[in-house]
Amino acid sequence: MRATIMYSAGDVRIATVPDATITQPTDAVIRVTYASICGSDLWPYRGYAEFDPTGNRMGHEAIGVVEAVGSEVRTIKVGDFVAMPFAYSDGTCVHCQAGLHTACVHGGFFGSAEPGGAQAEAIRIPQADGTLVALPGGGDEALMASLLTLTDVMATGHHAAVTSRVAPGKVAAVVGDGAVGLCGVLAARRLGAEQIIIMGRHADRIALARQFGATDVVSERGEEAVARVRELTGGYGVHSVLECVGTDQSMQTSLAIARPGGAIGRVGVPHDVTIPANAPTFRYNLTISGGPAPARAYMDELLRDVLEGKIEPGRVFDRVVSLDGVPDGYRAMDEREAIKVMVKL
Amino acid sequence: MRATIMYSAGDVRIATVPDATITQPTDAVIRVTYASICGSDLWPYRGYAEFDPTGNRMGHEAIGVVEAVGSEVRTIKVGDFVAMPFAYSDGTCVHCQAGLHTACVHGGFFGSAEPGGAQAEAIRIPQADGTLVALPGGGDEALMASLLTLTDVMATGHHAAVTSRVAPGKVAAVVGDGAVGLCGVLAARRLGAEQIIIMGRHADRIALARQFGATDVVSERGEEAVARVRELTGGYGVHSVLECVGTDQSMQTSLAIARPGGAIGRVGVPHDVTIPANAPTFRYNLTISGGPAPARAYMDELLRDVLEGKIEPGRVFDRVVSLDGVPDGYRAMDEREAIKVMVKL
Repeated sequence: MRATIMYSAGDVRIATVPDATITQPTDAVIRVTYASICGSDLWPYRGYAEFDPTGNRMGHEAIGVVEAVGSEVRTIKVGDFVAMPFAYSDGTCVHCQAGLHTACVHGGFFGSAEPGGAQAEAIRIPQADGTLVALPGGGDEALMASLLTLTDVMATGHHAAVTSRVAPGKVAAVVGDGAVGLCGVLAARRLGAEQIIIMGRHADRIALARQFGATDVVSERGEEAVARVRELTGGYGVHSVLECVGTDQSMQTSLAIARPGGAIGRVGVPHDVTIPANAPTFRYNLTISGGPAPARAYMDELLRDVLEGKIEPGRVFDRVVSLDGVPDGYRAMDEREAIKVMVKL
Repeated sequence: MRATIMYSAGDVRIATVPDATITQPTDAVIRVTYASICGSDLWPYRGYAEFDPTGNRMGHEAIGVVEAVGSEVRTIKVGDFVAMPFAYSDGTCVHCQAGLHTACVHGGFFGSAEPGGAQAEAIRIPQADGTLVALPGGGDEALMASLLTLTDVMATGHHAAVTSRVAPGKVAAVVGDGAVGLCGVLAARRLGAEQIIIMGRHADRIALARQFGATDVVSERGEEAVARVRELTGGYGVHSVLECVGTDQSMQTSLAIARPGGAIGRVGVPHDVTIPANAPTFRYNLTISGGPAPARAYMDELLRDVLEGKIEPGRVFDRVVSLDGVPDGYRAMDEREAIKVMVKL
């Protein structure tokens, strides 16, 4: 079968690899119908990663159709139209029961040597019963983009909102105007934030952020951005910071705009980030939370809202490519020509 | 009047200073009846502080009787028997209204050049209406020790429990067997923790921890301690870590014993602490929270439990000294001869 391989920074190609097959009785294999490129895929693209000698298997967001199931798979059936969260999980361990599927004791992450990547014709799904979510209305093309976001980007934006304790009446700021940040805006509005400040400077993204519910835009950087957020919040700062980038600058900005007692929900994979132990974190009782989103845990509630048309996170996709177009999709996202790229197989 | 001054590390003396007086119309002056020495007073005693050329005014925990009030003081009256939380606060600003009195916009901390220290015959109380809590049953000597703990140590242990999200059925660990850690045990039990692991190795403190509700004791250090906590928790680690020390070792131990999705409530003032940005914090969705406890916010609920005899945090005091005995009280706490020293004036 054909799959996306990244051989080194900037070198993404479509290659022929062994077909995805059942290797464990709890596995399924899905034929991918839609996949996508994630902001986190750009970290290795920009050189922040180690590379396997045979190249890295890419992609961890997909929806598709079940082609085969192992002998112990009970609830998922061949032919089911399913969504695949970016982490696989058994759904039964103590961490899954607590809603943290990304820490499943039998879990792991897609877009790795095993079980492979989702920017491919097919992929093996470990712990299929726990991992996959059967989607109703399999055929509605208009829903595909939004359903696809539930496998990572919308779930991740939601996680930033949850872990930064967004609640009705609260003031939130979203650091980062990438696809995750935009979904963070949507999630913050959905959870009832009264004021939502998007921090970013790309006109197309800002426009979408406003449509998603952002009430204020801060396009300054560094200290000026902090001053502007203070100005917009009566001098106090925000209750909730959705940190959707993962750089040291974004983290320091997040800490500086939080009001005393505020919370930072981190979902941008941290790269060379420093978290100060005393001021302002301890001194002002800031809460630092977040991590890989348990997309599986959030699937039911977010799916309901997508199916009812309450949220349309799929609007973060502004480009569609075929599998052969994936390398150019990486380039387009890297050059900020596209917010987020969908792969239609 | 006479007050406690620390001139340099290890050099604590009782000196004559100008009488405490009303300087603002919102002030009160209280005659101190009981004060105490705090674990945090040992940081400068051990050299972790800058010293004022005229010496540092010490003490931030006291109960006493109101001697004078400023012209704008409305609810506190001369003769009231009151508790003085370690931070003063107006009780009306946005942060006080949110329950974070230690971030009051008109607030500050006792045990400083202004308004002075509480290990003294008297002290000026800024923002008297917001800061002071009138105590019922002014005369019951048996309650004094527990009432005194509400000004800091019990409130701080409670804050560690709250910020580490202790709740019914949860597994908690308390890092540190000082007076704050012991109060943390009491607070964790009060909030319904099912299993409470105290990490410490002093027989007298461990004995009190067990009486306060600790179910398990881990006396090992470093990696062995982590392994032992894992063993006691089915391999998973704890939901809540009450970090009651503030050293880098205590922080790294706290991070290592938290289960994925767990929370660390920090109340030990951090000294040379590093918080890793990625593993295990981000990778395992750990929440880092805590800071200076809003003792004023917790006063009402904890006071009720003290008055009803449900908790007896005053048992952390194992020595009583006069004002002249304060220097020796510092020595005794520094040498771990005493858990916590009460000053009876």
